[in-house]
Amino acid sequence: MKNYLERGFVLWFTGLPSAGKTTLAGQVREALDQRQVPTELFDGDVVRTYLSTRLGFSKEDRDVNVKRIGFVCNLVARHGVAALAAAISPYEATRQEVRAACEVPFVEVFVNCPVEVCAERDVKGMYAKAKRGEIKHFTGVDDPYEAPAHAEIVCRTHLDSLEQSVAQVMGALEEMKLIPAASEKVA
Amino acid sequence: MKNYLERGFVLWFTGLPSAGKTTLAGQVREALDQRQVPTELFDGDVVRTYLSTRLGFSKEDRDVNVKRIGFVCNLVARHGVAALAAAISPYEATRQEVRAACEVPFVEVFVNCPVEVCAERDVKGMYAKAKRGEIKHFTGVDDPYEAPAHAEIVCRTHLDSLEQSVAQVMGALEEMKLIPAASEKVA
Repeated sequence: MKNYLERGFVLWFTGLPSAGKTTLAGQVREALDQRQVPTELFDGDVVRTYLSTRLGFSKEDRDVNVKRIGFVCNLVARHGVAALAAAISPYEATRQEVRAACEVPFVEVFVNCPVEVCAERDVKGMYAKAKRGEIKHFTGVDDPYEAPAHAEIVCRTHLDSLEQSVAQVMGALEEMKLIPAASEKVA
Repeated sequence: MKNYLERGFVLWFTGLPSAGKTTLAGQVREALDQRQVPTELFDGDVVRTYLSTRLGFSKEDRDVNVKRIGFVCNLVARHGVAALAAAISPYEATRQEVRAACEVPFVEVFVNCPVEVCAERDVKGMYAKAKRGEIKHFTGVDDPYEAPAHAEIVCRTHLDSLEQSVAQVMGALEEMKLIPAASEKVA
């Protein structure tokens, strides 16, 4: 199988913990797979296992982590791959820095979901722990999240279904001419 | 330009400091470029800037660094790229671990040069510093280098010219059918 994009791009999912970044990114990846677009997915937690061993959650360590994910996304994307990142990446300036460092199109997806809804979902039980003070520096509780000012795509995971959000992202990528339209699959 | 390898591979240059890894890897990269083979080069020192910020030179940190380079090499190589690494990577077991973790062919190039010659070259003046005790854990002086037992390619940079070593590596890659022969350039 040798189907390649004309050029790669970075698709960066940012948002609060439990906003739905990993779920959405995973489904978008599947949709891209189905169109034979080569992908890599860098999920914040997985990345910490391989790429960012021993980094913590201070502002400085978060920034190193986010910039490192950006560095690796750019690396693979410049070889015609759609590089997906799902990372809280809470600081606007750091995300902007990653965007500026990319040699390929950088598409920011703001996975927007109110903190109350995220805390209720609490996929990993971390909001509860943070509220009990058992963990510190938890984004949305005692650490800031700076919403993107100029995200190319904003998904509202508390209002739209997963399918709707996937369709929204795929539609936007088509419009930006980053992927072929569904009807003109790369053969 | 869309010329891709049938499959990518990892080309791993290991050897003492000042053995000639960076020089040789850089020239091999140029030779691959000329054949329109897509490449990435991960040089030990450059990697420390982006990927391995804040890692030191203890055995544990060296291992994290080497495994991280291996992880990223594999990432890009599985998208049809020739991923070159130039890293001292002094421990045989760690190199073997990287090899085993690769989903693509892993080709080890032992840049073999006697430590006396390396110390005389002393490209960065580090051997001198290590001998004066100004830096610790310097491979070849007060830190071990375990020569590869089964490297696919062994270059002797103290006996052969750079051109000879480049030709040797390119010839071996051709023989392994990892790159097209010079006469059948990818068009």
